[in-house]
This record gives sequence, structure tokens and C-alpha cells, in this order.
Amino acid sequence: MLTYDFNERGDTPIYEWLYKCMKNDILDGKIKAGEKLPSKRSLARHLKISVITVENAYAQLMVEGYVYGVEKKGYFVRRLEERIAQPKEAPQEISLEVEEKKYRCDLTANSTGVDHFPFSIWAKLMRNVLSEKKTEILMRSPYQGVRQLREAISLHLYHFRGMSVEPSRIIVGAGTEYLYGMLIQLLGRGKIYGVENPGYQKIRKIYEKNDVQCRHIFLDKSGLSLEDLEKSDVQIVHISPAHHFPTGIVMPIKRRQELLRWAMQEEERYIIEDDYDSEFRFTGRPIPTMQSIDRQERVIYINTFSKTISPSMRISYLVLPEHLMERYRRELSFYSCTVPAFEQYTLAEFMKKGYLEQHINRMRNYYRSQRDALIGALEKSSLADKIEIREEDAGLHFLVHFQTECSLEKLKQRVEEQGMRLSWLDEYFHEPLKQPPTTAVFNYSGISGEDISSILTCLQAALA
Amino acid sequence: MLTYDFNERGDTPIYEWLYKCMKNDILDGKIKAGEKLPSKRSLARHLKISVITVENAYAQLMVEGYVYGVEKKGYFVRRLEERIAQPKEAPQEISLEVEEKKYRCDLTANSTGVDHFPFSIWAKLMRNVLSEKKTEILMRSPYQGVRQLREAISLHLYHFRGMSVEPSRIIVGAGTEYLYGMLIQLLGRGKIYGVENPGYQKIRKIYEKNDVQCRHIFLDKSGLSLEDLEKSDVQIVHISPAHHFPTGIVMPIKRRQELLRWAMQEEERYIIEDDYDSEFRFTGRPIPTMQSIDRQERVIYINTFSKTISPSMRISYLVLPEHLMERYRRELSFYSCTVPAFEQYTLAEFMKKGYLEQHINRMRNYYRSQRDALIGALEKSSLADKIEIREEDAGLHFLVHFQTECSLEKLKQRVEEQGMRLSWLDEYFHEPLKQPPTTAVFNYSGISGEDISSILTCLQAALA
Repeated sequence: MLTYDFNERGDTPIYEWLYKCMKNDILDGKIKAGEKLPSKRSLARHLKISVITVENAYAQLMVEGYVYGVEKKGYFVRRLEERIAQPKEAPQEISLEVEEKKYRCDLTANSTGVDHFPFSIWAKLMRNVLSEKKTEILMRSPYQGVRQLREAISLHLYHFRGMSVEPSRIIVGAGTEYLYGMLIQLLGRGKIYGVENPGYQKIRKIYEKNDVQCRHIFLDKSGLSLEDLEKSDVQIVHISPAHHFPTGIVMPIKRRQELLRWAMQEEERYIIEDDYDSEFRFTGRPIPTMQSIDRQERVIYINTFSKTISPSMRISYLVLPEHLMERYRRELSFYSCTVPAFEQYTLAEFMKKGYLEQHINRMRNYYRSQRDALIGALEKSSLADKIEIREEDAGLHFLVHFQTECSLEKLKQRVEEQGMRLSWLDEYFHEPLKQPPTTAVFNYSGISGEDISSILTCLQAALA
Repeated sequence: MLTYDFNERGDTPIYEWLYKCMKNDILDGKIKAGEKLPSKRSLARHLKISVITVENAYAQLMVEGYVYGVEKKGYFVRRLEERIAQPKEAPQEISLEVEEKKYRCDLTANSTGVDHFPFSIWAKLMRNVLSEKKTEILMRSPYQGVRQLREAISLHLYHFRGMSVEPSRIIVGAGTEYLYGMLIQLLGRGKIYGVENPGYQKIRKIYEKNDVQCRHIFLDKSGLSLEDLEKSDVQIVHISPAHHFPTGIVMPIKRRQELLRWAMQEEERYIIEDDYDSEFRFTGRPIPTMQSIDRQERVIYINTFSKTISPSMRISYLVLPEHLMERYRRELSFYSCTVPAFEQYTLAEFMKKGYLEQHINRMRNYYRSQRDALIGALEKSSLADKIEIREEDAGLHFLVHFQTECSLEKLKQRVEEQGMRLSWLDEYFHEPLKQPPTTAVFNYSGISGEDISSILTCLQAALA
């Protein structure tokens, strides 16, 4: 009769050990297909264990399909395929993860300084939410996001962007990348999308990975070229009129009007207005959105809190025109909201109590002083006559054009050799430029005061 | 010269009021295209405001493109399109949101009882994360999710599912619905997907909205029918072998082996193993996963914490075979992780400290007692000879077949009239059944002890 050594079982319960041993014997063919197993009682007696233990082991073998029972006859082994390997022991980490290169200075990073985040306030609000909203934070939030957050966003848009948006037209989601994908599902994969060239690379990658046709529309000095757009077959155009990345162009009212007129000329033409860093305009009022002058339901507005709060907080939102909101409800509301309810309530409180406004103001001043310090240092340094700074008082980056005989390729290599990480204007074009400009994108949101002197040193060495 | 009433401006700064008035006049044609604006100095004198105020207003009109400056000549009004409406005043809520019907008893809800969630522990861990991981929680997490969480998941899978999975093959995302979409991007939209029929409706809706071809494969008593699968052109099959929803079928080892063999017969055939509620098996050991017996890199494993912790916490994960992980890294790692870093660190601590295990054990006991109470009450009631309970000791639901002369349609109507919310087996089939069974799905995870008597009353009235 079947005999197993129970001394080897370690912490494993007896029934589990018996089940495992028998399973292995079945898989190894030691117990043959069709063979009748000993009765529970006789096996228990033989192994000196209780009948209930054997019963549990047999039950597990049954439910997994190794054996079957025949009433009044007993248990029989099923016919299986060839032996299948058992799981390996504890997982061994294979290091597939690539270690990031460390740079002396990095002007590509997007992280907000830790020192600037109002932790104690955030923590307090979290504790409040945790104690006051026990029920709510365990409930699946509505597909659009929790109402309190949408109300707070509606008020924020009214006060800061001059927009009049009912909370019922707002959809909260885990990041703009996710929401782009939802828009494709909403507007249709068969549509032809247009993106800015140059532009934010991720947007075109997302369209590509979603298998939609995507055209690359050039910019002129007013932003997206209307001429180029009209020559194309684009139906839905994705733009950032408040502050184009990376050129910094602010689209003037005339071009906005022209684009709206373009959208009105045919059914199913839409403008996706990506307002990703409109909060960080340093002089004057924020630029009004296209959404706020659209009366034909042609503009879809999208924004994120990753710039204003933190890139680790994945909360973004869409504002849909009414007829698209109805379509979304009809066709896509089966999708659950992707943002944890807890985070949504905390952010809603953060906004309602005025902390977001305070934080944005503080960060705006901080970024302005960083920008001024960096630009001031560049202009006062020996680099001053070798560079030209192009900026539009906005966003968290500016362009630096290097006046050099050196080719772009060589310049990039030299900067890299100095341990400096930069992104370059030509990288934001869809196709390689014949004569790429020696122009870099300085994203200064992640640098600290001490970094400025290393930036100067690196650049001086690279341009020497 | 331009004259405006500054008494009406309320709280608006003077420069902003001036900018708004002038903008309106330009849009209304009161200031004509091409017209020269008064010099800053003269307008300031005329309006009795400071020159700097006028300067700020002109600057805003410039940046938005309403006026342009000509050196030494002054400021001129641009030619614009027709008047564009100004934003409405404060947003009016249009109630597009449909009020959910209230039921006397609801056997479709998925919410975990608030009383069962270990709030104080969770809150403590959140506070710890907030004070100890200030830097980390503000940083964008790696695209796969933070390492600590992936390590915790790897250990969890080893101890609870007998799986040997390196953390580097795990991808964390905001819910399984999101991850299904990522899988389509990874495996290809041109592939043909197969889903279980009957099955979880959301899965097929997601495939549909992602514009992939989707076949509906029937089940036999061992789960997905191999015969039906082999007759189809399906390349990627999406199944829940541990516990099929809604039938509760546990796929026996033989069918698992047959499916693995099917997958090995051609390149690019894969099995998506959806292990969504494997934690709630009430007797014996958990059923080993297909992933753990797959040695040919054919199985993609997917699971979620929304059943074990809360549906409001949007954390799910994928386990990819190595070659698919490499493809993901190459093609999709530009996507940011959709789960807030803060939530990831908190969950990692919750798992590492053993709280998840405790919570699952507690919930398993709780659900078992709920199930036993509900089944016990049904079996002891006058309904006993009118119903047949079909269950597999697992998951958070069971099937109830009603022995009645009444048509399914009529039965549904009667149940609804009693204020009882139920879902029905026929609703999980892709096409309407000719003779739909009078079988309902009882999801008891959201009910409380007091609900049982209303359930009995409703059913008795409906079947009377």
C-alpha cells in the first residue's frame, strides 16, 4: 500500500503532505491511471493517521481532478497528460531591471521637490478622510470619479481657468495616458488623429500603441499650422494651446478661433485641449482655454494633477462636451474608475480647503525663482554669448539654443560626457530633421539651487 | 478715448478688469481690427490708473493675441473671427447622473463590509509611509510598480499560490480592466481572443471596446470546452480556471493540461489566467494555478486586490512570462504606472507585515459563515423544495436554480417587484438562450445577517 515518510513534511499539515505525495506519484505514473486508491479507512490505518486527514487529502485530489469517486466503489486515478513539472522553489530574482545611469545634473526630471509638498496638511486630510469616510472609501467610486472631487475640480476650473463646467461632465482617471486611451475608445479607433510636430513624444506613442492612424502636423509661430492641418485628413487634433511642449508657444486667439472653425466644418471633428501645465504661468493671468470659448461642443479638455501636486499621484481628468458625455455614459461607463476612492476624497478636501491654490501659488513662486536664478546665472556666465534663451514666461522648462560650430551629435555627446542629462528639441520631431538645431530643453523643475553651478561647469566644459 | 467703469469690477484687480473690458470691446467690434490703441501713458492718465496697470492689461492682450505691438508705433488690434461667446457664469449642475434604484435586498453588490476592514492598521501604515517615504511617494514609481510591492506580491504568490515569480516579471496597474487593455497592446490587436461563454460580461465588453475580434467559447463540465476552442481560430484565451464566474466550475488538472498543450501547438498562443477570487476557497488548499505548471511561457497570470481588500482600491497585477516581459519593457514601458506610489507602499507594508494574510483568513471565515447562514436559511425555509443550490465551496457567490413553472422573464419581474436585486445565469451568455434556465447568481459578499430574512421573504413572495 502507499507509504510516505511524514518526517520530511516540515511545517506542512499532514493532509497537505499526503495530497502532495499522492499527486506527485500520479503525475510520475507511480500510481497508474485507472488504478483504485485504497479506501480512506485502510490508508489511515496503514499510515497511522486519522481518517479525516485522508479524507481531506482525497477531497483536494478530487477537486483538482486527479482522482474521481464512484459511488460505493471508491476512488480512481484519472488519465492525465505527461508529467508536468512542479513549481520551482522560492523565486530567484533575475535582474531584468536596468539600473538608471546617475548624472551630475539632470535637466530632464519632472519631480517636484520633496521639501515643497505640504506633507503635514496632506497627512492630516488623509487621517480625516480615513476616520470620516470609512464607508465611502471602501465603496467602488462612480465610474466618473467621486462627486466631491468632481465638484472641487469644477470650482477650480471656474476660478482658475474661467471655465463653466458641470461636475457631471468631468471624468477622473489614473493619469492622462490612461485617459487618452479612453478617448480613443470614445471617439473611435477608425478616426484619424493629429498631433503636434514637434510635440510630446508620449502622446504619439500612445496613439501608435492603440493602433490609430496618427498624422504629425507642423507648427508655425502661432502653434499648430492651420494650413498643414487643412491639407491633412485629420479629424481629431490633440494640442496644447496654453503652452506648447517643448517650444513654449502660446496659441493666440486668432489661431484658436480658426481651429474652432475648422472643427465646426465637419461632424465628428474634435479638438483635444491638453492643458497640462497651464497653472505655471509666471506673469499676468492664465491664458483662457479653448474649452471656454467653444460653443459647438467641439473641445475636449484634459488636465492632470501630476504637475501641480506630484507625478506619483495619478489623478487626471477629462471635461467632455455634453453629447460626448452622454456617449461615454452609454458606452464606457461599465469601466470602473481607476483612481482609489481614498485618494480622490483626500484631493477633494485639499482643493476645497484652498490648499491646492496655496500650493500652486507657492510652487509658482518657487519655480519662478528657480528659473530666474538659472537664467540669471547663465546670462552672467561666460556662456552668455554662446547661448540664446527662448522662453515664454510659462511652464517648467525653456529652450536654450547653443551658438556653436559643433554638430548637434557632437554637442550631445559632449554634454553626456560631462555627466549632464538634457533633452533636445530635435528629439520632439516625428522624423529626423535634416539640420537639427543645437537647441536643448531645460526642464528646471527638478533641480535645486546647488545644481546651478554644476550646470554651468558642465556646459562650459561641453562648449569649450 | 476708451472709458470703463471701474466701480463694477468687484474683487477683480484693476489691470484684469481693464483687460477684460478691452477684450470684450475687441470681440464685439467696438474697437476695430487694425485700430491703434491709446498709448499706455495717455490711457493711464485718462482712466486715472497707473501706467504699470495699463502695461499689465496690454501684456495680457498681447500674449493672448488680441493686440500686437509695432516698435516705436504702439499697439494695434488684430483681425479676429466673429464674436465668440464668453464663458457662462458659475457652472449650473445639469443632473445627468442617474439615481440608482434602492433595493430591499441586493445580491449583486460586491462591496466588502466596512466593519471588516482593518482601518486602524491601514491608517497606521499610511502614517508610517507618509513619514518614512516622503521622497519615494513623490517620485514617479517605476512603470512596473514600486519594487517593494512587487516583492511582496512575489512572496504572497509563493506562499499562497505555490507560484515562483520574480518581482521583475510583475506589473502593477490600476485594476484588471486597465491591465486587460495593456495586454491587448502587448499581444496585439490583430489577434483573435477567446472568452468563456457564459462568463464575466465586462471582459468581453473590454475586448469589444478595444476593437479586437473576440470569440465566445462554450463551457462543458470541466470548464472551457477544448472541442469548441479547437474548432475556433482563437489565439489567446481568457479563462478563470480556479473558479469560473458565474458557474463556479473548478477546471480539473486534465483540462488544464489539455489547454497548455493547445497553447504550445502554435506560436503566439497564450492563456490569460484570471485568478480573481482564488483566495476565497472555503475547504482544502487553494487550487494550484496554471501559471505554476506552465513551462513553455504560455500563461499570463492576472489577479486583483479589489476582492481581498476593497473594490475602491484599484490595485491589480500581471505576471508575464519572461519573453513577454521583455517585450513589455521594450514596447510599453513608456507608460507610467497608474497606481499612486503612496498606495503601493502602504499595500506593500500591509502584505509584508502579514496583515493581508490575516485579513484574508478573517474574511474567508466571515464569508463562509455568511454563506452557511444564507444556505442554511434557504434550506430550512419553505423554499427548500423549490430551489436547488449549486456551489463549489469557493468564491463569493453560488447559483440557485428555481424549480418553477414560471418563465424566467416572469420570475425576474416578480423578484424585481419584491425589491430584490439579483443577477441571472442567462445574462452571462453571449447570445440569448432559447431556453434560459431559471437560475440566479447569489453574490452574498455585500449582505449582512439581517438581510437574510428579507431575502427569504422576497423569494417566498416571488415564488408564491
